[in-house]
Order: sequence, then structure tokens, then C-alpha cells
Amino acid sequence: MAKPWATFGIDLHLEPAAGGLRRGLTDALREAVRTGRLAPGTRLPSSRSLAADLGIARNTVADAYADLVAEGWLSARQGSGTRVAERGVGVGAGGGAGAGAGAGAVGGGGAGNVGGAGAVGGLGVAGVLAGPGSRPGVPGASPSPESVHRRTRGLPPPLAPRPLYNLIPGTPDLASFPRAEWLKAARRALTTAPYQALDYGDPRGRVELRTALAHYLARARGVRADPDRIVVCAGFSHGLRLLGALLRARGARTVAVESYGLDVHWNLLAAAGLRTTPLPFDERGTDPGRLTDEDAVLLTPAHQFPVGGTLHRDRRAAVVDWARRTGGLVVEDDYDGEFRYDRQPVGALQGLDPDHVVYAGTASKSLAPGLRLGWLVVPPHLMAEVLRAKGGIDACGSLDQLTLAEFLTSGAYDRHVRAARLRYRRRRDALVAELARRAPKVRATGIAAGLHVVLRLPPGTEQQALRAAAWHGLAVHGLHRFRHPEAGVEQDDALVVGYGTPPDHAWSGALEALCAALPE
Amino acid sequence: MAKPWATFGIDLHLEPAAGGLRRGLTDALREAVRTGRLAPGTRLPSSRSLAADLGIARNTVADAYADLVAEGWLSARQGSGTRVAERGVGVGAGGGAGAGAGAGAVGGGGAGNVGGAGAVGGLGVAGVLAGPGSRPGVPGASPSPESVHRRTRGLPPPLAPRPLYNLIPGTPDLASFPRAEWLKAARRALTTAPYQALDYGDPRGRVELRTALAHYLARARGVRADPDRIVVCAGFSHGLRLLGALLRARGARTVAVESYGLDVHWNLLAAAGLRTTPLPFDERGTDPGRLTDEDAVLLTPAHQFPVGGTLHRDRRAAVVDWARRTGGLVVEDDYDGEFRYDRQPVGALQGLDPDHVVYAGTASKSLAPGLRLGWLVVPPHLMAEVLRAKGGIDACGSLDQLTLAEFLTSGAYDRHVRAARLRYRRRRDALVAELARRAPKVRATGIAAGLHVVLRLPPGTEQQALRAAAWHGLAVHGLHRFRHPEAGVEQDDALVVGYGTPPDHAWSGALEALCAALPE
Repeated sequence: MAKPWATFGIDLHLEPAAGGLRRGLTDALREAVRTGRLAPGTRLPSSRSLAADLGIARNTVADAYADLVAEGWLSARQGSGTRVAERGVGVGAGGGAGAGAGAGAVGGGGAGNVGGAGAVGGLGVAGVLAGPGSRPGVPGASPSPESVHRRTRGLPPPLAPRPLYNLIPGTPDLASFPRAEWLKAARRALTTAPYQALDYGDPRGRVELRTALAHYLARARGVRADPDRIVVCAGFSHGLRLLGALLRARGARTVAVESYGLDVHWNLLAAAGLRTTPLPFDERGTDPGRLTDEDAVLLTPAHQFPVGGTLHRDRRAAVVDWARRTGGLVVEDDYDGEFRYDRQPVGALQGLDPDHVVYAGTASKSLAPGLRLGWLVVPPHLMAEVLRAKGGIDACGSLDQLTLAEFLTSGAYDRHVRAARLRYRRRRDALVAELARRAPKVRATGIAAGLHVVLRLPPGTEQQALRAAAWHGLAVHGLHRFRHPEAGVEQDDALVVGYGTPPDHAWSGALEALCAALPE
Repeated sequence: MAKPWATFGIDLHLEPAAGGLRRGLTDALREAVRTGRLAPGTRLPSSRSLAADLGIARNTVADAYADLVAEGWLSARQGSGTRVAERGVGVGAGGGAGAGAGAGAVGGGGAGNVGGAGAVGGLGVAGVLAGPGSRPGVPGASPSPESVHRRTRGLPPPLAPRPLYNLIPGTPDLASFPRAEWLKAARRALTTAPYQALDYGDPRGRVELRTALAHYLARARGVRADPDRIVVCAGFSHGLRLLGALLRARGARTVAVESYGLDVHWNLLAAAGLRTTPLPFDERGTDPGRLTDEDAVLLTPAHQFPVGGTLHRDRRAAVVDWARRTGGLVVEDDYDGEFRYDRQPVGALQGLDPDHVVYAGTASKSLAPGLRLGWLVVPPHLMAEVLRAKGGIDACGSLDQLTLAEFLTSGAYDRHVRAARLRYRRRRDALVAELARRAPKVRATGIAAGLHVVLRLPPGTEQQALRAAAWHGLAVHGLHRFRHPEAGVEQDDALVVGYGTPPDHAWSGALEALCAALPE
């Protein structure tokens, strides 16, 4: 009952023991044609592009294509690339439900040959959705990771397909993970590490990483850091779990949060026995004037998630004043500190008062969530309690920690972030320009930073836009999904669009689908 | 206030920004000579040997030695290797406390030039102790990781030195970690992984690793495994935390444990709100006939830790019967399943009843604790609860998981384990033979497996032996340290000797010191 080794989009399930990557890819593509999920005439991505996205050798893809051309499932013609053979439908006719139904097969019914010669755009492989599209555990509207449905541009599918493009915020473009650089750093790190680095480690995490982070955070984010007060953790959510346990052990009951945020964070705090209460906000950001006797407050001061504003300087000061006055703890979630586009980034709130603010950062946006590496910068008087919550041991593999340390100190991290920033900024600019042209009623806000924008919609149209987006093959959330259940604020109609997630070759298709889904 | 980058033994603190490894090593060695911690005449390990232990290039060590010879701190002579220059004491006289005191300086006082020309044996670099020497969190007698004191063979030091050789069980020989093979596997894994492998992952862990583990555990340990019921966790202690949380959430109150075990495990269960009660044992192992209404039982059936016996087959059946009768949960800690020397390993208890036994394994003994990779094989009906305890997300980095999967499937794991088994078996044989010759009153038990033996002492001599061991530079625990506070059994006098921990070049010195410490 092995699960598919990898979901390459369009249900490309590869079994690990199925005879290697080429065989697995060939089988999966053949199956997709046979069952009609890849409609006749559909143009496949270039072998170079698919190989890059799948992280496999180009030859493997080229060989799989060649095998299938030889078998008659695909056709290749100079200048027009590789397409699903027109006789694909015929071949597949006896092969399974939906074979004759073409693209619209999922959901039953279907209406003949969608795609065909009219298919000029991208291919479904683009919209890979593997696992939760946002931060861990975001439940609800996430599409099934098991299967992604292909659709073609220009011809609306007869039934709303399952999502093809993932625009749920929270994940960077993983196809651009700097694999070669990371491996180089891993080699340097493991080659030079003393063997003691392989032992049970400091519960705070490897000192090499904490030292590198202290330098980086001071330089890039104005954090008052020191290796001795940094705790490496398995991503932001692990850090928040530690803080939840710490607060609960201190007898805390309530944590103030922003009116909009991630339910997975509220749920983590609830699991620790803490109630979350939302703070109101206005154009200057979340209002700390409404803080009273809460035990802590969780904020995204630099770039509110998901609304996008920056906490006003008066309010930054007010938060710190509240913490000093009441002994409350401020938790600063600096989730996208690396990605500012239009001006100097705002420094971390923690710099104002390192004794009352816990700074929390993560490699999940700048590199990849799969690394499971995040960090807390902890006020010294709370260090022992955080480590107690952590169980007194290091939770993260020392090799990845040493590699990230090497990545930071060698400058590879800065190079990667600069390149990623440029790429995301281009996407953002294209998004804003295209929207101005094609959906002038929609206003893009929160665009100064991060990997997502909020598209403000005419009042009362969010549900309609979500339905249209689903119809056009988009996985995307409305703003209401991020609203705290007890938030008293007015509901604003908007889509929260994570433009960082699609791999490069899928981005233009995703943008096209988004524009098509929005009110004109 | 950066912590030392690495403790290479003899206080070799390298700062990460201190100008590279060569410079750091040179500075640290110079400082050790200057302050007298390396006494005049002390022979340094060969550059090849030190480089291997430190995991750095041989040239780096050779260059550091050459620098210090040029500076007059060391002397090199054909055929007699590199030694601390005789004028070292003089040079160091003004340099710091203890410079004139030679080897015995720690603890104050000291008695002149110990070591000197009489030093014929190993050097303190051998006895590196970085971090807790046993499983995480074992408190108490562990020596300071910050500094290790050198001592020379043949001349007893004037004061009990801080430990030089680490014989606390629980850590394999980390200097033998297969770095090159691991890097090769990491390269293959990261090169071929689809980019989705870098996303938030399956909360059970990467399917590639679970698939590889299912095959391996079935083949090597008779575990009835299936990728769908495996949960990857950050080492055994993380797995035990998950089980503790699960039990507590079900209303459990009591977990039966063995009379001898690790306090860190009892403490983890206590932190989850569970009481541990010890079961009596005899020559057939722990007695499950004494199980009543406990909610769970934690056992080391294949090789009791630390006493060393195998649970008798009648008792294996009785444990499972108890679980079926009462609905209690059996947790099988298979901590050293890879290391059996004298016969076929006993299959996992889990194989008898996969619906009532949670199997727990770890890479900490077979590879390294720093990987922070362990696994649970969970009865299907408990899977959802384990994942809830885990927070619904994967806790371990996907790259290390993919690398271990590749390591397992490529056969590199088996090759490594076979080589390690041979090496440890040789150590065990040397230990047993040397003890028979030099300490005939001492009986080595529990020797059929694992990385430790229990040395039975004449009644009433354990404390004395521990004092002698400390005197001879050994970090070692007595059996009483592993006794559950509520255990009703008689106290047996014994030392628990982990012979897997020292690096190869230190092993003979450690054995020599151990024999010297034992009653003749």
C-alpha cells in the first residue's frame, strides 16, 4: 500500500521500486493519456522545463517522451514540440472511465474533446500541488495533493476542474531551490565538521548556525541577537508550540492575535490551552491600544499576514510599552523578512526591546519548508523555559543546521535571496500590471513585500470570485478564510493570492487564469 | 559571547570567524601548550589520525603542526613524531595559571612536571567529550563538554583529572560516521527528488524513507511494517514524547517500565503526566506477570538496557497476552537492533502483535544521534492520535529523510552497519579478553549485543570502582545510576561500560585505563 512516490501533477504517481524514474515517468504519462486526463493535442512542456520542475535529469524526461512517441501515445514535430497524439483518445477508449471525455472527465460526464488542436497554452504539469499549499495544517479548501487536473487555456472546461495552479500563500517557488549550492554547502559543512557535531547536541541548536544567524539577523533585520539566546527549531510552528507550552506552564490563558492570520497558529495555541482574542486594526495596522491583560500578543509587524500593511511606528512603541507595563510577551512573526521590494525593510520590533519580544524567523519562505528550520531569539530570562518546553534536546538534524550555517556565512544565502527577490518582484509587477489592464475593478494591496498580494474585490463578490477561480483551475483562498472567528471587523471582499508558489514555467498560465477569473 | 566552535578535546576552542580551521587549530594548540595543558614532551597524535578524528584535511593539521614547530612550541624529529617542545613550560610560565603545573593543573595545586619524557601513550585529544555522553539529557556524572584534560599513560596524575575517555553508553563511534557515503547519498537524493519534496510534507514523514524503512525493518528485524503505519520522528526521545502525549490524551496514568533503564525516558513520561512503575526481573528478563492495570509498558526486549539480557520467549508471549487482555499498549525500544554479535538477532516483539505493540527504532546508534532520525511503527488505530501529538506536521528535514532513504535502498546502510558491527565486536572481544587477564574478579555480562557491557564487581565495590575510574580519566556510570527509584530489586554492583563511544585511536587507551581502574 505504498503511497505514490511523488505527485508530479496530473497524477504522475511514481512508485519507488517501479524500475526507476524514467520508467515511472513514462508509465505515469502513458496512464494520463490513456485515461484522457491529458487530452489529444495537448502540448507537453519542454523536456528541459519539466526536468527542471521535477528535479530530474533532462535526459530522463526526453527518454520518457521518446518512449511514448515510439509507442504512439505522443507525437513530436520539429518546431511544435511534443503533443499528445490525436489518436490518444482512441487508444484510451477502452482503458478507463473518462478516456473519451477528454479534459472534463473528473466529476463524471464530460463533454467530448476539450483541448485538442485548440490547446495552445501550458500543460497541467504546471500546477503541481503536493501537500498543503500554505503553512502546515491549513485545512479546508486546499485541493487534494493526490491529483491535479489539467486544463487548457482559451477553452473553458465543461466542469470545474480540480486546481491546476496553486496560489495559496505560504510556500516559495520550490523549483527554484538552490540545489547545487545547497549540496556544495553540505559538502563543505560535513567535511569540516568535528565528529562531535554528530553527537547529541546543544538543545539550543548547533552553535555554528546560531552564530551565523546572530550575524545575519543583526545585519539584515536589526535583531538584537546573540548566539546564546537563539533557539533553532523545526520551523515557525515548532517555535510557536514551544512558546505556547512555555506560556501555559507560566499559567497564561490568553494570547492576543491579529484579526486576520492563520488558523493553524490559533489552533496551535489552543492546543496548548490558550485562548486567542483578536485585536482590531485600521490603516496604521493592528491596534495595541486594545491590549489589556492578555498574557502575550502574536504579531506580524513588518508585513501583516495576510492583509499586508506595516505596523505604524507609534503602534510599535505602544506594543513594547504594553509589554513593559504588564509583563506580557510579544511574539514577532517575521515570516517574510527577506522579501521587501519597494523600500528599505522595517527593522524587527525585537530591536526595540529584546527583553520583552521573542523574534521568530524561518527558512521556509527564503529556502524551503521541507528543511524544517526556524529560529527564535529569546529574552534571556525565558531561555531555560523554552528549552524545557523543547524537551532539553536539539530537535533538528545537525547536518542541515551546519549546512545552513555554511550557506549563511559563505554568502550563498544572500545571493539566493537576492535572486529570489528579483524573481518574485517581477512576478508581482506583472501581476499588478496585468490586473490594471484586465481587471480594473480589482485593487492589489499589501504589495510592498512578501510572496502574496490581497486583491480587493467589489463588495459582495468574494464568493463569486472564488467560484470563478476554482472554475479556472486556481487553488486560492478568500480573505474571509484568514479572519479570526471572533474578529469584530467588517468583512472585506478580497482574494489572497500567493504568487510565489508556482514554478516559473507555470506562472504566466496562473496569471492568465487569475485574470480570467476576476470580474472585468 | 560566541561559544567555542568545537571542543576538540584539550580545550581546542575554535571560533568560527577566527580565520579558518588551520588558524583556529594552531591557536588552540598553542594555547594548550602555553597554559601547560599539553605538557612538555607530550607526543601529539599523527596528523593523519588527528585529522581523521577532527574530520578535517590532514594538511590542515600538518600545517598547524609545522607552524608551531616553526614558532618553537612543538618539536618534530624523524621517527619520534611531533612532541610538545621541552621549553614549552618555560615559554608558558608567564602565560597563565597552571602553566608550571603540567598535567595536573586542573583543580588547582598540581605537582610539577607530569608527563614529560615519560609520556609514551596517547594524547588527550583522544577523549573528546562533546555534549551528553549518553542519550539526551542524562544528567549527573557527565563530564563538562567544555574542556577535557590530558593525561599520560603510566604516570598517575597527582589529582583526579577530568575525564579523558568517554565510556558512557548510548553514542556510537562518531569518528567512524560514513561521511563520504552519506554525502554521496545526499547528492543522489537531492538531485533526483521532485521539488515537492521541499514543501511541507506528510506528517508521517517522507514516503521514500517510510518505504525504505518498511522493507528494512521487515527484513532485518521481523517488524510487520508498512509505510502507512510508520511515523518518522526526531530520534527515539521525540517518539517517546509523542507516545506520552497520546497516552495522556487517552487518560492514561501509569506506564510500567523495566527496573533498570534511562532516567531521561522516565522523565519524559513524567513530563507528559504519567507515572512510571518498575517491573521486577530475573534471569529470564523483565517479568510481565506483574503487569496489572498499567496503561502501557516500555520494554527493551531484544537487549535489555542496560543489563543486557534477552526477554524470554514465554515472557514475550505474556506481554502480548497482557496487552490483548487489558488493551494496554506495549512500547518496544529496539535501540540496538543492528548490533548482535554471537547469534541471530531475536526478532522484534512487534512481529507478534502489530496491533498492540509500537515499535521504536533510531538511527542514533547505527549512524549518529546528530541526524535526529528515529521511527515508530504504530498500530493503525493509533495513527491519527500519534499525528495529532506530532502537531500535524512533519518535524524532520526532508533532505536528511531522503538521504537516509537513499542510504537504506542503495545498500550503504547495510555496508556501514556490517563494518561497524565488526569493529565493535573486535572491541568487545578485546575488552573481554583483557578483563579476563587483568581483572579476573570482574565478570562481563550482557555482551551478546549492543555497544556496552555490564562489568559485575565484587559486592560493595561499585563506588570504589567509580572513584578509581574517575581517577584514571574515565567517564563511566555505575549500574545503580540506571536503577528506577522505586525498583525493589537488590542493588548489584557493576559498571556500565559503553565501548562504542571512543574513536578508534582512543580505544586502546580507554581499555588500558579501564583495566587500571578495576580491582585486580
